[in-house]
Amino acid sequence: MQKTEPRTLPGFMELLPNEQILFDKIKQTIEETYKNFGFLPIDTPIIELSSVLLAKAGGETEKQIYRFNKGDTDLSLRFDLTVPLAKYVAKNYANLSFPFRRYQIGKVYRGERAQKGRYREFYQCDIDIIGDGELSLINDSELPLVIYTTFKKMGFDNFTIKINNRKILNGLYEAIGQKDNSVEIMRIIDKIDKIGEENVKEEILKLGVSAETAQTIIKFIKIIGSTDEKIQKLEEMQIDNEMFKKGVEELKQVVKYIRLFGLPENNFTVDLTIARGLDYYTGTVYETFLNEYRELGSICSGGRYENLAENYTDKKLPGVGISIGLTRLFSKMLELNLINVNKKSISDILIIPMTENMEVPLKLATDLRNLNVNTEVYLENKKIKAKMKYADRLGVPYIIVIGDNEIEQNNVKIKNMETGEEVETKLEAESIKGLLK
Amino acid sequence: MQKTEPRTLPGFMELLPNEQILFDKIKQTIEETYKNFGFLPIDTPIIELSSVLLAKAGGETEKQIYRFNKGDTDLSLRFDLTVPLAKYVAKNYANLSFPFRRYQIGKVYRGERAQKGRYREFYQCDIDIIGDGELSLINDSELPLVIYTTFKKMGFDNFTIKINNRKILNGLYEAIGQKDNSVEIMRIIDKIDKIGEENVKEEILKLGVSAETAQTIIKFIKIIGSTDEKIQKLEEMQIDNEMFKKGVEELKQVVKYIRLFGLPENNFTVDLTIARGLDYYTGTVYETFLNEYRELGSICSGGRYENLAENYTDKKLPGVGISIGLTRLFSKMLELNLINVNKKSISDILIIPMTENMEVPLKLATDLRNLNVNTEVYLENKKIKAKMKYADRLGVPYIIVIGDNEIEQNNVKIKNMETGEEVETKLEAESIKGLLK
Repeated sequence: MQKTEPRTLPGFMELLPNEQILFDKIKQTIEETYKNFGFLPIDTPIIELSSVLLAKAGGETEKQIYRFNKGDTDLSLRFDLTVPLAKYVAKNYANLSFPFRRYQIGKVYRGERAQKGRYREFYQCDIDIIGDGELSLINDSELPLVIYTTFKKMGFDNFTIKINNRKILNGLYEAIGQKDNSVEIMRIIDKIDKIGEENVKEEILKLGVSAETAQTIIKFIKIIGSTDEKIQKLEEMQIDNEMFKKGVEELKQVVKYIRLFGLPENNFTVDLTIARGLDYYTGTVYETFLNEYRELGSICSGGRYENLAENYTDKKLPGVGISIGLTRLFSKMLELNLINVNKKSISDILIIPMTENMEVPLKLATDLRNLNVNTEVYLENKKIKAKMKYADRLGVPYIIVIGDNEIEQNNVKIKNMETGEEVETKLEAESIKGLLK
Repeated sequence: MQKTEPRTLPGFMELLPNEQILFDKIKQTIEETYKNFGFLPIDTPIIELSSVLLAKAGGETEKQIYRFNKGDTDLSLRFDLTVPLAKYVAKNYANLSFPFRRYQIGKVYRGERAQKGRYREFYQCDIDIIGDGELSLINDSELPLVIYTTFKKMGFDNFTIKINNRKILNGLYEAIGQKDNSVEIMRIIDKIDKIGEENVKEEILKLGVSAETAQTIIKFIKIIGSTDEKIQKLEEMQIDNEMFKKGVEELKQVVKYIRLFGLPENNFTVDLTIARGLDYYTGTVYETFLNEYRELGSICSGGRYENLAENYTDKKLPGVGISIGLTRLFSKMLELNLINVNKKSISDILIIPMTENMEVPLKLATDLRNLNVNTEVYLENKKIKAKMKYADRLGVPYIIVIGDNEIEQNNVKIKNMETGEEVETKLEAESIKGLLK
């Protein structure tokens, strides 16, 4: 019979079970943190009508979309969780309570050119808070707490949540007569980490900006100091522009409430160079960096937007949200050895019968499972050597071997597979459970 | 601005948050039960190469598949979790321990004609045990235990796992010279619940089967009595066919080990009319019915197969597995009021500030969250009436209102939203947590 090569598509992550256990654990940590902050779950289809999904999209995004016909229907796979959220909120508006706090964790699809670290199928872990008509600025301060708590629970300490406000940027460019160049200038500034200040200045000058104006921009992005000092310097810049002033005031308020929520000073900062995309965000913006691994880029980003669902409804629905790209983050964590694939087994214990009398081992398995001990029985009729090899490869923390002697004496040895240590106890579920760590 | 109607495709389940909470809880119960039996998680892509996914498929399945090109690549969405498992095991053979016990819970896609209760996107919750070359029959007895435990944990009591063995059926039809008609006969027998014995007999006769042979078939499917009586009557049938005898012996063994695992007699039975599909299964087969809602059909099915991955590898990989179609089951449970969408909130408590001083409410929220209490703060600047309306609609079990008095006296009332009862306590996280149920 002709065999087909069992291939997985490039750009699609497919993990071995020991890696999957770890991935699922991190995903669960994120989900539990989102729930801890009272976010509600939703689960939208992966396939949507192209007319719905692409009501707004264009340019680069549209090229990447998996789009196809089924019968006469023009369908697309979702490329993020924000557009489906907009559809969901517009569709279910009458049945939702606002502010609507939702989380969604799911796969999204982008037909990127395949390259290392780029995924075509990847998990996004999103939260958003959607207001009906208006939404308090304090929500902008709560999300950094969610980011902080999530990464702390994932085991990170040394990370920084960078905060900025798009009104400050837009107001500044308006004030210095560079509104039309603002998108391009922000794009250039975004590269400052990679190309340095001198190159940024040079590229800005190439846009036909005067030396004086370029100097103001450089002065602005070079504002340094503590969070409070930066805000003070912004206020002192005396930019005569309402939007700029509003942005500074918002930033000041967001920082104030971030502190009231108790976010440590070490884990956030004002960073005037971050802009997050080009037209979606209208206020607070966030990026998050691992300080020792800046090369990973932002591992959690988001911000405030004016109007979530304007393509679907006349209702004004302002919101603020963040997203973690988990698939890429996980692959980088593996690559950098930030996590260890040491837990190989879902089972807490493996029962190895060495007897014809299966009644005792099978009943014990059921009893242990009923005590919430994840339990597996080796059921194959093999030599003890093969059975032990299976236990080793499975990476199960404890094993017990049950032979006729053990049954007769109602006694069993529990072996800790990590230390090799053996402890004897009664052959019953309660006693055995008591000896598991 | 022109608005797009925010539609979701027919055949794609999209729940409101209160329904989603319930769905997620059931999904989690299933996952935890699968883990309790030591199954390992895998997560395969939703998109695969058509050449890989359709290596075996044909007929009805192929017509339903979502298949499309991206660039020059012929892609398909997975239509079950079994073919991806076969690919996965063949691909990762060297890195897996056998027997390989895996679970996978994920969405699959079938472009069925849209009709009530039929889904085009739905969750399957699968477990399979794959052997390398061989696999002990005791595994066939463990899966009914997993089915039993799963449905018990979901709150069901009155359900029956029906067990049969394909070898018995195939052997019988071979013995009575109806091997070529066997597929058609099994299809007819499958309808006995719907059309009754007389119609079954009539349809069988129409195949050109002799009256005597038809009588043997009817006698066979009418075998009644307890599980043990049925097995005894099978043995007494004196069918002179090796496969039949092997099937009866396997069934007998499977029943024996099912009892050793401790499955209650009430929850399983031998049913000689179930056949499960037409060519995939080769031994034990399972179907599961809610006794009071037989019209739902089987809510958990599966069986034993000879060779999982013959399209991808020369390795012989026998296995046994089951699958729960969760999306359809959930929609039926809702429809029949088997579950109540009463829990509306992920939050355990909602803090409602009635003060300008946000320091205390925000700090309390952080403290409660750190004690694993899911906590939400109402952050909008609204009148108390609007705030209470939000609390009501959210369906949160407890609220506390924090005004300047509460802060001054360091005292707060916790209101149980179900009973209306109010209890006073210190305004601190530990005391408040102690009063939550």
